[in-house]
Amino acid sequence: MAIIKEVFEEDGLGQLNTLAGAAGGVKYMPMMNKSVSLAIIKNICRELEQPERVLPGGYLYMTDMLGQPNLMNEVGRMFATAFAHREIDVIMTVETKGIPLAYATATFLNLPVVIVRRDNKVTEGSAVSINYVSGSNKRIQTMSLARRALKEQSRVLIIDDFMKAGGTIQGMMDLLYEFNATVAGVGVFVESGEVDRDERLLEDYVSLAKLTAVDLKTKQTSVAPGNYFKPEEG
Amino acid sequence: MAIIKEVFEEDGLGQLNTLAGAAGGVKYMPMMNKSVSLAIIKNICRELEQPERVLPGGYLYMTDMLGQPNLMNEVGRMFATAFAHREIDVIMTVETKGIPLAYATATFLNLPVVIVRRDNKVTEGSAVSINYVSGSNKRIQTMSLARRALKEQSRVLIIDDFMKAGGTIQGMMDLLYEFNATVAGVGVFVESGEVDRDERLLEDYVSLAKLTAVDLKTKQTSVAPGNYFKPEEG
Repeated sequence: MAIIKEVFEEDGLGQLNTLAGAAGGVKYMPMMNKSVSLAIIKNICRELEQPERVLPGGYLYMTDMLGQPNLMNEVGRMFATAFAHREIDVIMTVETKGIPLAYATATFLNLPVVIVRRDNKVTEGSAVSINYVSGSNKRIQTMSLARRALKEQSRVLIIDDFMKAGGTIQGMMDLLYEFNATVAGVGVFVESGEVDRDERLLEDYVSLAKLTAVDLKTKQTSVAPGNYFKPEEG
Repeated sequence: MAIIKEVFEEDGLGQLNTLAGAAGGVKYMPMMNKSVSLAIIKNICRELEQPERVLPGGYLYMTDMLGQPNLMNEVGRMFATAFAHREIDVIMTVETKGIPLAYATATFLNLPVVIVRRDNKVTEGSAVSINYVSGSNKRIQTMSLARRALKEQSRVLIIDDFMKAGGTIQGMMDLLYEFNATVAGVGVFVESGEVDRDERLLEDYVSLAKLTAVDLKTKQTSVAPGNYFKPEEG
């Protein structure tokens, strides 16, 4: 068993977790090693740098890429690998664009998904709503989650497609607090580097790609691999 | 090749499509045979009949089930099987709850997904918006899709989680008309049978389950397999 485990993990094929006891057994976690991940992310970065993707406000048009299930599954496998060692009960995202990434990640980790709504038209019994300030445009917005959608004390992995200052993710964290739930991790597909350090609302997250420069006039952008690919410090 | 094809299809393992010519080859479509599908759907029906799922207006709370990626993948495989013989370029759904079903189906059919927004806050360049009347509550609502999200002439499979009178799906069809696109099929996870025949806005769709009775007072419901499982007529 130990040998199989070693071979699997060295080759980046996946991780075998052995659970002791009557309910024990071997759990296979399909992983993706960093060099494979990096090759895929570099292709994604090149694709994201196409000038026609630049949108007003320094955003990038990514909807076509988020609409490719196979690409989402590859990215989901990266997130699953990045967070495989954490204890997680549920994956959370906010509608709409983060949903395919959340499901792809959840498929590999075999976890349920909870989707936070951006309105309070939740028709599912009592709901908790919070107001949050989107860090980049300073507008007050609302997000809500049905009371029965999330158990108290859950350990939650937050997944989203894009993070600028982090206001939306901070909003999800505030919502988790209302459910006595805890944040097990934060994963974002693309982070914007166009944010001042003191505007950034959170520090502890995993990003797969980083938008390092946008010139709205020339529509020149630069996208690099995210902090997941940085060499470990210390 | 013919023998392999026969064995695969008889056992419901999948379908092998042979394409002639230089770009030809063999395409494997993972299918799920009807008896396996029916067994899964019967379990889903029993789960949906739990009295605490009844919501005001004759809707059912299904969010927890839609949050299970593995269940969504099974349902997606059923839709993929149901529509495997049609020519489809893209799968469309409207936010939010149909999204996991659309992606699961798209994964098996290896197709892209397009998500229609329920607002017109589309920040992705020019967009087409239409108003539609939700058949069940008679309110005028808006849905929109970015112009660049869908190519003209596309053949589109519409997937949604729940259909009452069909107003939302009719809205997506109206939107497709604006893109000179055509409807290749409509698949709904659960249809409500609590609709008068003359209120029903469309006839040609595949449903996997059907809510046949809801008693809002006693919270008794009855859910049966949908029209996908009906014996072929003629």
